[in-house]
Amino acid sequence: MDYDIKDLKLAEKGKLKMEWAARYMPVLGIIKEKFSKEKPLKGVRISACLHVTSETGNLIKTLRKGGAEIALTASNPLSTQDEVAAALVKNDSIPVFAIKGEDNKTYYKHINQALDQKPQITMDDGADLVSTLHSQRKSLLEHVIGGTEETTTGVIRLKSMARNKVLRYPIIAVNDANTKHLFDNRYGTGQSTIDGILRATNILLAGMNFVIAGYGWCGRGIAMRAEGEGAKVIICEVDPLRALEAVMDGFQVMTLKEAAKIGNVFVTTTGDKDVISRDHFLRMKDGAVVANSGHFNVEIDIRALSKMSQKRRKIRDFVEEYSLRNGRKIYLLAEGRLINLAAAEGHPATVMDMSFANQALCVLHLYRKGKSLKKEVYPVPEKIDKEIARLKLKALGIKIDKLTPEQKKYLTGWKEGT
Amino acid sequence: MDYDIKDLKLAEKGKLKMEWAARYMPVLGIIKEKFSKEKPLKGVRISACLHVTSETGNLIKTLRKGGAEIALTASNPLSTQDEVAAALVKNDSIPVFAIKGEDNKTYYKHINQALDQKPQITMDDGADLVSTLHSQRKSLLEHVIGGTEETTTGVIRLKSMARNKVLRYPIIAVNDANTKHLFDNRYGTGQSTIDGILRATNILLAGMNFVIAGYGWCGRGIAMRAEGEGAKVIICEVDPLRALEAVMDGFQVMTLKEAAKIGNVFVTTTGDKDVISRDHFLRMKDGAVVANSGHFNVEIDIRALSKMSQKRRKIRDFVEEYSLRNGRKIYLLAEGRLINLAAAEGHPATVMDMSFANQALCVLHLYRKGKSLKKEVYPVPEKIDKEIARLKLKALGIKIDKLTPEQKKYLTGWKEGT
Amino acid sequence: MDYDIKDLKLAEKGKLKMEWAARYMPVLGIIKEKFSKEKPLKGVRISACLHVTSETGNLIKTLRKGGAEIALTASNPLSTQDEVAAALVKNDSIPVFAIKGEDNKTYYKHINQALDQKPQITMDDGADLVSTLHSQRKSLLEHVIGGTEETTTGVIRLKSMARNKVLRYPIIAVNDANTKHLFDNRYGTGQSTIDGILRATNILLAGMNFVIAGYGWCGRGIAMRAEGEGAKVIICEVDPLRALEAVMDGFQVMTLKEAAKIGNVFVTTTGDKDVISRDHFLRMKDGAVVANSGHFNVEIDIRALSKMSQKRRKIRDFVEEYSLRNGRKIYLLAEGRLINLAAAEGHPATVMDMSFANQALCVLHLYRKGKSLKKEVYPVPEKIDKEIARLKLKALGIKIDKLTPEQKKYLTGWKEGT
Amino acid sequence: MDYDIKDLKLAEKGKLKMEWAARYMPVLGIIKEKFSKEKPLKGVRISACLHVTSETGNLIKTLRKGGAEIALTASNPLSTQDEVAAALVKNDSIPVFAIKGEDNKTYYKHINQALDQKPQITMDDGADLVSTLHSQRKSLLEHVIGGTEETTTGVIRLKSMARNKVLRYPIIAVNDANTKHLFDNRYGTGQSTIDGILRATNILLAGMNFVIAGYGWCGRGIAMRAEGEGAKVIICEVDPLRALEAVMDGFQVMTLKEAAKIGNVFVTTTGDKDVISRDHFLRMKDGAVVANSGHFNVEIDIRALSKMSQKRRKIRDFVEEYSLRNGRKIYLLAEGRLINLAAAEGHPATVMDMSFANQALCVLHLYRKGKSLKKEVYPVPEKIDKEIARLKLKALGIKIDKLTPEQKKYLTGWKEGT
Repeated sequence: MDYDIKDLKLAEKGKLKMEWAARYMPVLGIIKEKFSKEKPLKGVRISACLHVTSETGNLIKTLRKGGAEIALTASNPLSTQDEVAAALVKNDSIPVFAIKGEDNKTYYKHINQALDQKPQITMDDGADLVSTLHSQRKSLLEHVIGGTEETTTGVIRLKSMARNKVLRYPIIAVNDANTKHLFDNRYGTGQSTIDGILRATNILLAGMNFVIAGYGWCGRGIAMRAEGEGAKVIICEVDPLRALEAVMDGFQVMTLKEAAKIGNVFVTTTGDKDVISRDHFLRMKDGAVVANSGHFNVEIDIRALSKMSQKRRKIRDFVEEYSLRNGRKIYLLAEGRLINLAAAEGHPATVMDMSFANQALCVLHLYRKGKSLKKEVYPVPEKIDKEIARLKLKALGIKIDKLTPEQKKYLTGWKEGT
Repeated sequence: MDYDIKDLKLAEKGKLKMEWAARYMPVLGIIKEKFSKEKPLKGVRISACLHVTSETGNLIKTLRKGGAEIALTASNPLSTQDEVAAALVKNDSIPVFAIKGEDNKTYYKHINQALDQKPQITMDDGADLVSTLHSQRKSLLEHVIGGTEETTTGVIRLKSMARNKVLRYPIIAVNDANTKHLFDNRYGTGQSTIDGILRATNILLAGMNFVIAGYGWCGRGIAMRAEGEGAKVIICEVDPLRALEAVMDGFQVMTLKEAAKIGNVFVTTTGDKDVISRDHFLRMKDGAVVANSGHFNVEIDIRALSKMSQKRRKIRDFVEEYSLRNGRKIYLLAEGRLINLAAAEGHPATVMDMSFANQALCVLHLYRKGKSLKKEVYPVPEKIDKEIARLKLKALGIKIDKLTPEQKKYLTGWKEGT
Repeated sequence: MDYDIKDLKLAEKGKLKMEWAARYMPVLGIIKEKFSKEKPLKGVRISACLHVTSETGNLIKTLRKGGAEIALTASNPLSTQDEVAAALVKNDSIPVFAIKGEDNKTYYKHINQALDQKPQITMDDGADLVSTLHSQRKSLLEHVIGGTEETTTGVIRLKSMARNKVLRYPIIAVNDANTKHLFDNRYGTGQSTIDGILRATNILLAGMNFVIAGYGWCGRGIAMRAEGEGAKVIICEVDPLRALEAVMDGFQVMTLKEAAKIGNVFVTTTGDKDVISRDHFLRMKDGAVVANSGHFNVEIDIRALSKMSQKRRKIRDFVEEYSLRNGRKIYLLAEGRLINLAAAEGHPATVMDMSFANQALCVLHLYRKGKSLKKEVYPVPEKIDKEIARLKLKALGIKIDKLTPEQKKYLTGWKEGT
Repeated sequence: MDYDIKDLKLAEKGKLKMEWAARYMPVLGIIKEKFSKEKPLKGVRISACLHVTSETGNLIKTLRKGGAEIALTASNPLSTQDEVAAALVKNDSIPVFAIKGEDNKTYYKHINQALDQKPQITMDDGADLVSTLHSQRKSLLEHVIGGTEETTTGVIRLKSMARNKVLRYPIIAVNDANTKHLFDNRYGTGQSTIDGILRATNILLAGMNFVIAGYGWCGRGIAMRAEGEGAKVIICEVDPLRALEAVMDGFQVMTLKEAAKIGNVFVTTTGDKDVISRDHFLRMKDGAVVANSGHFNVEIDIRALSKMSQKRRKIRDFVEEYSLRNGRKIYLLAEGRLINLAAAEGHPATVMDMSFANQALCVLHLYRKGKSLKKEVYPVPEKIDKEIARLKLKALGIKIDKLTPEQKKYLTGWKEGT
């Protein structure tokens, strides 16, 4: 079996880590049990490009139990947990290609190695694997039935491909499931982004001006948690509606140029590029801390920052000090990569449970129905989404009300009024 | 001019009250100015069934300035501000049919009087006027071009009518505009529901078990504000997804039967009937306070409560004490009608500004385009929704960022990856 | 019996209102029961100068049940609930001298009438009765054994009198009891100040800049609740330590001159005078709303505001519009008097329960032990304070842990270390 | 120079870490500058027993710059940052005796080595050094002028010593300074405790039942932050007043036995022993996570837990799994030691700045005035406390208001009333 990981000796630690995560992934656990018995994916070849974390480990094991042949590569050079990679290789015979801190060249080499699997199903997080497949490995396209995509950024790219008639097989946007983005993007990104910033810096957030660019689901989650730490949250947006919501939610809203002057910590989470750039760096106070929580490391214009600096040094793990020519220092975290995966451990298992239950069931759905689908981006089937919500609630031991027949009828009638 | 109101002498107070509200309605103000110049609704006959509050007064005046002929009736027997009714009649020559505390018979008589206007456009809040028109006044249907609907409950009824092929003209669901329901239902209902409960009871919410049935936009708003007062919020839901969101938002989630045993205050906001009923009343603690913030007074089963009680008396304005046979007392607020409109003054002007800007622009849209529409429920045109967000932000003096051409391009591309 | 109130016919409404409040005053209820049996204050003459609210009504009735002869006058011209005054006169034969909206002359006439009682014990809230007694009615001082004081401002005045050797009898600072100021000043003032502002204005607080002058217990309570409504809270302070706490609590801290430029709503709660004055009014935005929640109406410099204005009119109950010469309008609430008592109903019964349980037990303590005390300001005896906390928790049905003997011992030892 | 640390090669990393912390310690920075010039502690021998963190490093360097001769030892076996220890030895020639993870025997050996310095001043955090000095090294007592104590637990022990007439020299309770405990214990412990739990477990706190034993300043800080992460906070207390505050702050309050049944995460912060013991472990749900944030590792009865377990294994760093005989698993974090120091990095520099500014100035105060003090526990001189608040605010660039002469006069008068 081919693989490329840091160190096989880390396997035991990785195994325990996955075991710990599994405690918080009861819905995936139910699916795993079912898959073990029924083997519904027997022999199906899958190439997966996902953050190699303990939660992903549990997803991969679930698919494996279902009979699939999977190759796994990282969806970000900094997000791999090497011990998990080791455990998957050693204990579960999964070919993994991922090393934390790998350079861009290795990153793409690994994607290609995962593609050598000749996938029938692709699983992607950011669409790097899909775009590699569509540009450099076109010959493999004939094998592919369909794919899943985990994150907002990937969905945006894939919809653009579909719009441009470039997309060659159907994709299910797992990201857009309610049981995914309402939880993972909000509560997951919220907690883990703050976690990443604190592990990297150990600064006190109470009383800080905490600037967030982007008030989508991720931005809201971060805002909620930053406020929960006592920070004064400032939101920068380009969409008037979201900006209005931020105002009514009690946050200060201003342009990033204004925010640059007063912010202590900055986080980008927009899905767009050059959100924080030269003009903003110039206005920042000495000591400003800058991090990214969006999918790609393009949100902060690092090249501009480098050019403006006369010196650069690492002052703590994941904290790089840029000494600007104006005498001020700016601290960039985790090289502008996803701070929650680079400096912390990514989304907690509790939310990934639902995201990955969606992944597992959508892979099965694609395998069964993919051939009847068009070369477009599809939502997660509503039935899957709802079932996952129901199972999660049950796993948490929470009971809710049921509509009576009279109440159901009332909701569909129109005659009863005042 | 025909009208039926409490007392014309209240007009001066109503005028000042509308003036005060207008300060917080800048977007409607811009539309009013434009309408005054252009008279785009010259001679258009409108029958409006809305809560007769100072904010509605400003909407009616705006349409009047645009040239419309409007008759106004109340959309709830308890929600009329008599001074506003008086001012509209006396100063603006609007035929108003609404008296706070009118009985159900008068309520429907007033709706019929407003319909005597032979409307080309209807404006409704809960669909009582539309359903009266479709059942008792069918002969008037021939004049109608279209209508607008303000609230969730009304939209549900109208969609049911459309589904059953009963609806005879197109309706725009103003409620579903982002600039309406995200603000009015959430921040408006949130603040004003608590306001109504406090005006009625003057109880301290800190430390109370505050039970909310329904975690839609209204329920979320109420939960946010109840927590903001220091209460311990408990959510009851029938939808697993919403229940999960409530859990992750930090609230306790349980069935209403469980919540009944520990709640101090109960608020319904579901759009359904008999949400709190006999079984729940039986479990409640002595002194439980029960209120409704949903559109109709059907959410609390008052008949059941009456039957269970051996005595009933009014202990404060809007607080009725029911002495149950089990020896406990339950306090029903505002006869189970919308607590925020009955005991307080409904949604603050700031949010109604956007809701009613949508109303004004949708009336115009219907007048111009209504004949080309089908007999269905339509969303607010996206252009109107977005423009209102933009104007509101501007009126608040808040500046936001703009995408650069490069950023726009990036968002529509797919080739740039890691 | 002599008395001076608005209207005896309001008595029934007042009786019900007190009955309602009594539901939320279980600790006072326990004391009342005990007093009824034991009559420990038989024949004791008391002059009480307190806000005449339904909660105070319950305190007065408790003392009366204990055998005391009490005359009651208002501690603020705007805070009287006329129906409560009527009920106390009619049903409980208490001589009350208090009419909501009385002018300053009548206010002091009423204080003098209450003093005609020749009190052995005084109960005060702001020290107006005590200072009248010490300046105009010195001959009565010989009868007095001691007094209680309810509020921070009164305690400050009385301590100043003691320091200047002017105070002629011992006072217990009820305000300083933990079970008083930690609850009443924080949760009571917090909720009721917001309540008063909303009843007066019906504005949406979400998204507003809400400026609070003073970050003592009252200011903290208001800040907590304003944030709970979605407002952006700005704190102005003179004490560096409190200012630092406000910063760390996540609020913006700045000088009032800076805050004046951006605030939408201003509330003073400092205990000092001229906190908002000419310089601040000049900087305020058009439409600024200004209110006071401190004891006296001196915190806002109303004279300066009047002088700067060319016009003044009442636009809503408790909202006065001042048209400044610079073209802007400023809205003063409740004539600068305690907004929570003037426009709303003061502190909810739940917190007054503890404050007034302290009052009742301190009156008894003074009657029994007053002669052995010096002419100084005393704290509430710790035993009383602790017992009230215990009773309140019990009344709420909440059980807490107890230290084991080993744990008690550990806490007093020093030898066990790492 | 004698020393005992992990590895001198870590010095460069420690130096950078201290440099980073220094950015957030401006008040200590001002003192350091002054000390560098004036050398007010020239030749003074100090033995310091403190958590060896980057913040402490900056304090030690400040005292060194002031001329002091300091030996440093750890105040907890798990809290040492080995890189900081290395930097202090290598770059600043400070004799340090501290290795992360040292056993109890080594811990006390190191304390003794620090005492070999024959201190004139002691600095302690938990009073282990002081109690060792008073029990095993009495001969050294003759040299000692005075000491400082950093934490609540230490102050409790020292007051007990003073009460028992055992204390042999004056101690200043740095912990009790307002600029210390209101910030460090609340915001510092709050953030860093959550940080420690997340680093150890990576669990999602949103929706969890988070049980906190103890609602002192530390407990409040933790409650605030746990709620800020979306957890449902449950408070257990023995003091009725604090319990009532917790209720009004919106938290659930119950006995630990009740909480044990529903909690997902437990944190102790009481200063007492056996807070969580056998009876509680027996009631806990499978998967319960248990941590301590109080000074000593006695709050959780680990011996009882061990006895009840049939198996024990480490599943992640700082997470130990105990398999109970009843089939459930309980996860103990960081061996029951201070979770924020063991699994995270302790209090952020921003709050330690004020705590350690108090330390530095109190050491100087003791050196100058100690001989005139009694053998008691003293508060930090008010002048020092206030000056630190002023300097901190200035360093944060925040301006506050000043009282006018008229306002000062008003506050000390009593004649102006209603």
